[in-house]
Amino acid sequence: MTEVLRDTFEKNFPRVEKDIKNAAFIAIDTEFSCLVSHTESKSSLFDTAEQRYLKQRDNISDALLLQFGLTAFIFDREKNVYESHSYCFYLFPHTFGSNDQRFKCQASSLEFLCHHKFDFNKFVYNGISFLNDEQDIRAQQELKDGDLLRSVERALSHEDEESVQAMCSQVALWLAGGLPEAATEKSIFLEVPRSSQSSQCIAYVAHHELRKRFICIWTLPEDGNIRVLKVSPTERAMMEKNHSHEDELQNAVLLSIRGFTRIFKLLVQLKKPIIAHNCVLDLMIMHKQFYCSLPKSYQAFKNNIHSLFPNVYDTKYMSSEYRKKIDRSDSWSNNTLPGLYRYFDLGRGHSIASYSPKIISQDFGDEGERKFHDAGWDSYCAGFCFIRMAHFFGVMEMGGLSAARPFTSTEHLALTSHLANRINIIRGNLTHIVLDGLDPPSHRPEIIVVKRRDGKALDALELTESLSKHGSVDVKMVSNKLALVAASTKGQVMDLCREYYKHPELALVKYNKIQHDPFIWTSTLCSLVMCAALSGIFIYRVLKN
Amino acid sequence: MTEVLRDTFEKNFPRVEKDIKNAAFIAIDTEFSCLVSHTESKSSLFDTAEQRYLKQRDNISDALLLQFGLTAFIFDREKNVYESHSYCFYLFPHTFGSNDQRFKCQASSLEFLCHHKFDFNKFVYNGISFLNDEQDIRAQQELKDGDLLRSVERALSHEDEESVQAMCSQVALWLAGGLPEAATEKSIFLEVPRSSQSSQCIAYVAHHELRKRFICIWTLPEDGNIRVLKVSPTERAMMEKNHSHEDELQNAVLLSIRGFTRIFKLLVQLKKPIIAHNCVLDLMIMHKQFYCSLPKSYQAFKNNIHSLFPNVYDTKYMSSEYRKKIDRSDSWSNNTLPGLYRYFDLGRGHSIASYSPKIISQDFGDEGERKFHDAGWDSYCAGFCFIRMAHFFGVMEMGGLSAARPFTSTEHLALTSHLANRINIIRGNLTHIVLDGLDPPSHRPEIIVVKRRDGKALDALELTESLSKHGSVDVKMVSNKLALVAASTKGQVMDLCREYYKHPELALVKYNKIQHDPFIWTSTLCSLVMCAALSGIFIYRVLKN
Repeated sequence: MTEVLRDTFEKNFPRVEKDIKNAAFIAIDTEFSCLVSHTESKSSLFDTAEQRYLKQRDNISDALLLQFGLTAFIFDREKNVYESHSYCFYLFPHTFGSNDQRFKCQASSLEFLCHHKFDFNKFVYNGISFLNDEQDIRAQQELKDGDLLRSVERALSHEDEESVQAMCSQVALWLAGGLPEAATEKSIFLEVPRSSQSSQCIAYVAHHELRKRFICIWTLPEDGNIRVLKVSPTERAMMEKNHSHEDELQNAVLLSIRGFTRIFKLLVQLKKPIIAHNCVLDLMIMHKQFYCSLPKSYQAFKNNIHSLFPNVYDTKYMSSEYRKKIDRSDSWSNNTLPGLYRYFDLGRGHSIASYSPKIISQDFGDEGERKFHDAGWDSYCAGFCFIRMAHFFGVMEMGGLSAARPFTSTEHLALTSHLANRINIIRGNLTHIVLDGLDPPSHRPEIIVVKRRDGKALDALELTESLSKHGSVDVKMVSNKLALVAASTKGQVMDLCREYYKHPELALVKYNKIQHDPFIWTSTLCSLVMCAALSGIFIYRVLKN
Repeated sequence: MTEVLRDTFEKNFPRVEKDIKNAAFIAIDTEFSCLVSHTESKSSLFDTAEQRYLKQRDNISDALLLQFGLTAFIFDREKNVYESHSYCFYLFPHTFGSNDQRFKCQASSLEFLCHHKFDFNKFVYNGISFLNDEQDIRAQQELKDGDLLRSVERALSHEDEESVQAMCSQVALWLAGGLPEAATEKSIFLEVPRSSQSSQCIAYVAHHELRKRFICIWTLPEDGNIRVLKVSPTERAMMEKNHSHEDELQNAVLLSIRGFTRIFKLLVQLKKPIIAHNCVLDLMIMHKQFYCSLPKSYQAFKNNIHSLFPNVYDTKYMSSEYRKKIDRSDSWSNNTLPGLYRYFDLGRGHSIASYSPKIISQDFGDEGERKFHDAGWDSYCAGFCFIRMAHFFGVMEMGGLSAARPFTSTEHLALTSHLANRINIIRGNLTHIVLDGLDPPSHRPEIIVVKRRDGKALDALELTESLSKHGSVDVKMVSNKLALVAASTKGQVMDLCREYYKHPELALVKYNKIQHDPFIWTSTLCSLVMCAALSGIFIYRVLKN
């Protein structure tokens, strides 16, 4: 796998660009600095898609996407082979101009990254810059106003400053006739050090510094380096009037500040299908970090993502559809990315039967490189699972296992197009959202209403603990005597209702039965009124302060 | 210098404790993850002490103190020598129970740390835990409720879990008679691995795991390790009833979670004088991170700090007092910590004349270890400058250079007690605050009122730029036609008023002249009324939404 850092970004860019252009589709994965901003924004089984979006928007508003994994899958029809090229980008929001980003870290998120041997020094020292469109517009404005020159100067490292000083000294020596063979020449060539992503910034500062210090010269950009000319005062005045080279210099700086966003823009521009596993959050943070702030409207978010990436395949969602088509006994033990990858890698079930293409990677020869939760490896695994599932779905669409034949990559995508743009939702009141249409109706089990038979107060924690025996539940207190309980599966609701049917203390009723139970109905109503009144008083107080 | 990390904290604790106990005073320094949370909270020359406190409180509410430098200065009266021992602690808020801290990072703060070669992997992987009093109370509660056991179990690393499993296997083997020489013994001894700060947590989990798995044994803590006894059912029941050992186990876990806060508590308990350079923010973040959330009241903050640390010496404040007593030509070029340290280290001025004590450190033999903005080295430098200045002030108090003699450390402190608890303020409307009394009246130069002679609108940025020629200024727009300008020195105000006296466009007046200028007075008043009205409308709208 190619690890791409700030100082290797420019060198790697053409290769990444070529791979993306040649790819049938691109698999991605991201790592975060923070997942849950405040404990109040935790996901719950009660959440509708819209509520979940707003919670997550709040959660990631200050989070940073600090590692981006990208695998380009290139199809060879002759050989029925997908060749994959994986990249892992480290990102860090380097300062420039007025752009001095803050981001939140969550202890558990960083510990999670530790667990997977994340290198925090690479991240801070050598992460690649990025800009979303809003920041890009500001940077362009500051470049025009000259504010960016000052800040680029300030941001230069000590070594970079020394490079600029060395260029000035060389020009001084040249002008003083101190360079033997070049003394009579009209111009000299200065090489800009290429060691870092900041070489464009060094060049930018050097051009301005040289022009300021020496009035009898002019500088021209030459393939990222600098050509210095001896000029007459008239020529100099003319050069200063003509701003065309300034644009070229400014564009070079902008490119270097944009950094990873250039890869993002390439993905958007080429509209390659995107593959990722359980990727609501990935899509949201990409929107925020490389496109623009997340809109308040959930629908606007879906529209934006769909116009950026018209074809997104979520392998988590696909796996739940896949599972419906196979024997339970043939299935995986869990559909996390590692669980799925192992299943398909071992060739379990029908996963590699029937002309399923070969998948080749030169990137993970070493066992040590196959680290789950390294964004590079995870992106490869998502793409790997996608191909296995897409082929199986294709075979099924064409009439079942007996009708199997090799498919082209276009067929793989076309035969699974009914699964595109469906993104898995964990622990919400629906299983997935639809990026290019209406979300499905909720298939979650009914809500359960709980009270104590003796009418006394309920303890939320105790209740959660005792009802969690059959699987995870979420409890919402309507009043201190009445709770709503959301369970994850219908079976679980049945188990709970059966078990508590004759329970001495707790009475459980399914939500739709409320209307038939005058006691619960009245007490719910009373509690709701009470609750509304209290909220009213609370809001009034907040506003008053 | 001793670098103290999570896995070397326990080993180093007794030595740090001894040094603190023996020290005449303790010099400290801290490094931050974020300095300015929002651009709106930037310091300004207009700020009163109270306004500044509230701004900074907002700025650091989410910041993390990630490196703490501490140097203990131990006085040897016989030799007139201060011997110094320096420590640099890396801190990270490891998760446990419900404690999953979030903190903000600012790109420029991390870049600043990069510039000084900060190791972010040491910080995240091996930073020491800490708890303030509020978190401590919660942790104790969760320990009692048993919630912490679960979370400690969850937080164990893979290696730690394997250690626990190995202990269980050893006991199983022993009970089955598989350990040859120990087969008949009534008890065996299990050693807990000491490699990490988490050894207390491993022990805690191991005790509970062993007792749960084997009903015919009981476990006793033995010097951090575990003694396993074979017991009868009656004995077991009795042991379970007696909770005294549980307390011991829980306390050991608490100690390990408290981590660095134990050092902080030691400083508070021993009430040693604290030396630091320009330390308002250091004191604030220590209050937040190791004591409790910062109070809303500025006075309450001062009271709290004074009761925690009754004697705080700010070397930045001291240096401005020192400068008043010496020839300008003898002074330093700047009173940053590096500037001061170099001055005193070179023995400039009267700085080491007249029996000034020798200062010895074994910690920074290597040039490479003397890195400014490494909290360890900075704390040493602050203490070094303190001694040089304290001795000079002492000599002056005793009657001048001719009356010089060696002082004890007690005398050094006593003779500078009038400088204690005065903390420097940068870029505010007063030069320092007083922790144990009333802040001094503002000695800042008068505010300047600016308008255009033609009555047209002013441009804030342009104004700031053109008035900054004589030194830095802050501009506050009262209306679009009227600005208030704060300058840093009185000389600067005079220069500005002189220069703009007959300026064709701008009219500058000192603030106290306003009352004599009916035009400005009315327009200010109008603008203020306008401003208040607009704010009113704005607030109304905000409340309405």
